[in-house]
Amino acid sequence: MNTQDLIQHLPARAAFSAAKMTKLDCFRSRHLLVGLNCFEPGQEQTVHAHDGADKFYFVVTGKASFTIGDMTLEARSGDLLLAPAGLPHGVARALERTVVLVAIAPAPRA
Amino acid sequence: MNTQDLIQHLPARAAFSAAKMTKLDCFRSRHLLVGLNCFEPGQEQTVHAHDGADKFYFVVTGKASFTIGDMTLEARSGDLLLAPAGLPHGVARALERTVVLVAIAPAPRA
Repeated sequence: MNTQDLIQHLPARAAFSAAKMTKLDCFRSRHLLVGLNCFEPGQEQTVHAHDGADKFYFVVTGKASFTIGDMTLEARSGDLLLAPAGLPHGVARALERTVVLVAIAPAPRA
Repeated sequence: MNTQDLIQHLPARAAFSAAKMTKLDCFRSRHLLVGLNCFEPGQEQTVHAHDGADKFYFVVTGKASFTIGDMTLEARSGDLLLAPAGLPHGVARALERTVVLVAIAPAPRA
């Protein structure tokens, strides 16, 4: 990767679509995927799980209702949400325009 | 881990010491360590590297001067800094009270 990519201002990298939530990669290796998930109000991410990989969400800006296991949790800027391997997780509904930092270790296949 | 630990408001978890920067774990597995590094103004983290593990810093609040490889980068809230395996990195100096989310994959030994 280029040295200029070693620092990224995430609010400036966020990109939104009226059609559905968007994803973009910030870093990818065998060990780690780091990316952004960007939501317009009302958009969602379907509940899913990663076998053998641990994941977290960190809400950079905005507010959304997350599903973690059998819980529904409203989270806002500054909140970390953990989805250890195998635990179903998703975003039930963004309540505002929302930018979420996501990390998955090890990285899923591209 | 307890289900109540699956969501953590990171600014509320931050803890500072007048003596030196502090570290605390938010999540630890074989694949992933997630934690906070907390700095009072002027505090530092010595430059170091992780063989075989990829790391990132995300500045939650504050502003600090980071070392990444041979670069010195001033970063503020919203900035992601990447330190792929083997690349030296550290915090030269916190310019304000600063809280940094840190992830390392795979996790170093406790």
